[in-house]
Amino acid sequence: MASSSLTPPPEVPMKLHVLNRNKLITSLRDHLSSSSHPHHGFVLLQGGEEQTRYCTDHAELFRQESYFAYLFGVQEPGFYGAIDIATGKSLLFAPRLPTEYAVWLGEIKPLSYYKERYMVDLAFYTDEIATTLLNQCQGVAQPLLFLLHGLNTDSNNYSKPAEFEGIEKFEKDLNTLHPILTECRVLKTNLELAVIQYANDISSEAHVEVMKNVKAGMKEYQLESIFLHHAYMYGGCRHCSYTCICATGGNSSVLHYGHAAAPNDRTFEDGDMSLLDMGAEYKFYGSDITCSFPVNGKFTNDQRLIYNAVLDAHNAVISSMKPGVSWVEMHKLAEKIILESLKKGGLLVGDVHDMMAERVGAVFMPHGLGHLLGIDTHDPGGYLKGAERPKEPGLKSLRTSRALLEGMVVTVEPGCYFIDALLVPAMKSPSTSKFFSSEINRFRGFGGVRIESDVYVNAHGCLNMTKCPREISEIESVMAGGPWPIKKSVYFENGAC
Amino acid sequence: MASSSLTPPPEVPMKLHVLNRNKLITSLRDHLSSSSHPHHGFVLLQGGEEQTRYCTDHAELFRQESYFAYLFGVQEPGFYGAIDIATGKSLLFAPRLPTEYAVWLGEIKPLSYYKERYMVDLAFYTDEIATTLLNQCQGVAQPLLFLLHGLNTDSNNYSKPAEFEGIEKFEKDLNTLHPILTECRVLKTNLELAVIQYANDISSEAHVEVMKNVKAGMKEYQLESIFLHHAYMYGGCRHCSYTCICATGGNSSVLHYGHAAAPNDRTFEDGDMSLLDMGAEYKFYGSDITCSFPVNGKFTNDQRLIYNAVLDAHNAVISSMKPGVSWVEMHKLAEKIILESLKKGGLLVGDVHDMMAERVGAVFMPHGLGHLLGIDTHDPGGYLKGAERPKEPGLKSLRTSRALLEGMVVTVEPGCYFIDALLVPAMKSPSTSKFFSSEINRFRGFGGVRIESDVYVNAHGCLNMTKCPREISEIESVMAGGPWPIKKSVYFENGAC
Ligand SMILES: [Mn+2]
Ligand SMILES: [Mn+2]
Repeated sequence: MASSSLTPPPEVPMKLHVLNRNKLITSLRDHLSSSSHPHHGFVLLQGGEEQTRYCTDHAELFRQESYFAYLFGVQEPGFYGAIDIATGKSLLFAPRLPTEYAVWLGEIKPLSYYKERYMVDLAFYTDEIATTLLNQCQGVAQPLLFLLHGLNTDSNNYSKPAEFEGIEKFEKDLNTLHPILTECRVLKTNLELAVIQYANDISSEAHVEVMKNVKAGMKEYQLESIFLHHAYMYGGCRHCSYTCICATGGNSSVLHYGHAAAPNDRTFEDGDMSLLDMGAEYKFYGSDITCSFPVNGKFTNDQRLIYNAVLDAHNAVISSMKPGVSWVEMHKLAEKIILESLKKGGLLVGDVHDMMAERVGAVFMPHGLGHLLGIDTHDPGGYLKGAERPKEPGLKSLRTSRALLEGMVVTVEPGCYFIDALLVPAMKSPSTSKFFSSEINRFRGFGGVRIESDVYVNAHGCLNMTKCPREISEIESVMAGGPWPIKKSVYFENGAC
Repeated sequence: MASSSLTPPPEVPMKLHVLNRNKLITSLRDHLSSSSHPHHGFVLLQGGEEQTRYCTDHAELFRQESYFAYLFGVQEPGFYGAIDIATGKSLLFAPRLPTEYAVWLGEIKPLSYYKERYMVDLAFYTDEIATTLLNQCQGVAQPLLFLLHGLNTDSNNYSKPAEFEGIEKFEKDLNTLHPILTECRVLKTNLELAVIQYANDISSEAHVEVMKNVKAGMKEYQLESIFLHHAYMYGGCRHCSYTCICATGGNSSVLHYGHAAAPNDRTFEDGDMSLLDMGAEYKFYGSDITCSFPVNGKFTNDQRLIYNAVLDAHNAVISSMKPGVSWVEMHKLAEKIILESLKKGGLLVGDVHDMMAERVGAVFMPHGLGHLLGIDTHDPGGYLKGAERPKEPGLKSLRTSRALLEGMVVTVEPGCYFIDALLVPAMKSPSTSKFFSSEINRFRGFGGVRIESDVYVNAHGCLNMTKCPREISEIESVMAGGPWPIKKSVYFENGAC
């Protein structure tokens, strides 16, 4: 019978978002000082709106926009928030709800409720934004608004600056806020780490619950259902960080399996590998965890070879991570270890340095080693303004090329996949065919292995926040019914983790 | 230990959507003949596109647009579909996927795969729409396209007509298709009924699973989690028809509780009523089911009074439903029975006809009695073009005012709620205060009761497709651990249900 060592889910103090705001204002003032600009004006952000499906009244479950969530922690749609740069005062603007709201959607809360709950200094209605902000800085003809506008380097989309009635009465700055706020998000506070740790704990436990219940003959989506249920039932996680990837057999070489066109609907069989990439989100903060194992609970020699190649890469990277280390170098380290293992296993022949130079690593691991993680699964800030993406296969898929900094949370997710679309051309190419032994044909259709942990970079090294069984002996033991207790951390104590 | 009598979920034959297309073409030809228009041109629909969250690359789980799903049954995003009105031939246009798709998202399927899987006559790429359609009707200078444009009377939004490169080479008709296609959706085929029956069966079983596991001290969302898990794990339902409403105590008087601003997060207590409105969706077709019961499994006298008032209304309506019956009259019937019960229970005094005239029924049941159900929870077609919405309280909330027709699936969902925002003004109003006895004050904070079943109108009456415990004795027995087996229907046999 399912249960959890992690219930009840912890209360997350709203102070987390107060600190996020303070951090932003400190950074913003530093920036303004350094460019001799006065400390006046407002940061103004618009929260997300509820969306309906196509032309219908089907309301999609609302999830707050991430920058707004970061600064204000507001779970409801339709809000705006501002911070007075001179005073640091925070202002929240709530939608003025029609009286029918009380009948259909719930109690209409007074502004004082939002002020208290979200720990802001002042609360108004959204139809009062212009008058309120003008009132706050009497005497200034056109107060300055710092609006959010900037590129998300994973989606190539731009964030949408706030819009409201009366905005033409203000001067607008669209360039300053985005990079500074993004960099605040890159470096996590202790309170943020505590939430990410909880998301990791409950997700790790949910992965273990899945491992314990896998049986050949099940459908892939049943593993998704077990995970989702554990994370929600015991962890209070209504959202996941991303759509669950529950890939078995050959599907495990499809990096982003699980979407509507490949909806985890295969019946898996004895002997299949599985690759389960699933992470719950708690109070806006996510986790991103992948476990790979044979569905029957016992690794074959071939499975052992590929799994340990990836695990060695995973462990070597984590052992090397500390502030200052280049993420591109970590990616190459992972590639090197995987190639060495494949060579040792007889799948590849020749010099590993030569393979690296010919980018053979990217045939087996076409994705980046990992990415920043936080309120978004692919948290922003991976490329600073002006930074160029690497162009080489594999490296060009990196979501960040930065050097590690204390406070970053990064996923470490090496993988080794047998993808015909990449393998076949590489085996034929004049520059790379020589590296492939005929042994590799045995692995066509194998699928792939990915091992993904969420890692926090601290002053001297790093900390793996993910608590899943990783060694083959651990996985086989858990799948055979062995214990795998996940210790509840002290998440919040005197506001720290 | 949870299990299900309904596994494995049934295979839904693609013929369902072929029949939907045939039905549309027959209707459309009839319409064109009756207005002496020639049978030429194409019906052209654009399927849904995958959406990302705000500026990020977080992909929302795709759900097909409902009209497109109805005609083509396509689960993937980015498609278009057409039907040649003269020949009835169906054409599907698939997105041309980049080669990287194979690495990240899965095998790139050939057009023949889609042609076969979706049982269409021809398959092309979406960049071939204009040339293909022009080729199909050589000699016609500007072939006619019937595009989807019309009002959704629940959302007040308009469906978005298809757009594609080269559309300017065609003549467009924006008025004909929407009402005819919508009316096709109103009247279900046997194949559609079979899918709705399955969605009802698995959802009914999931509701029973919840009833068996409710305990005071739990969180509301844990009931949501149990429901979702049962429907997905055993029923293969990845989507629900709508966000789960798990309301307990006073929350059960909030009609659409459960959204992001009221996220099923209360801890419920011994003595609370619960109102659980949850329905799974299977292969596009939905269910919409509400159960109400005390969380401790034993009804008090007051709970019994309100529950039976609603159950009597529910049963009386179902006993009266048949083709030709006005849904407005059914709403009034439900109101009358509830008011009579409240009078019998001492909460109201005076003449029930007078109460009805003063719309006291709408104080206790401000929503409509029910709505069409199908691929959308609030399925379109509730108001025919030109039909006016009733204006009176309660009646104005009806999502349809039509007379019942054989083939409709309608929810029957009477409710009785104690909503201060409505009750307090009505108790004070000169025209209605006389009807309220002081007994009613005992029920302030009671919350509410709703009982909702999905009902199919057949030639001579109707059929309740929902299989939940409804009588108080049944509910108490199930909650005490008694059996409630749900018999697996024969869903598909020779293509019929
Ligand atoms: Mn990841
Ligand atoms: Mn309903």
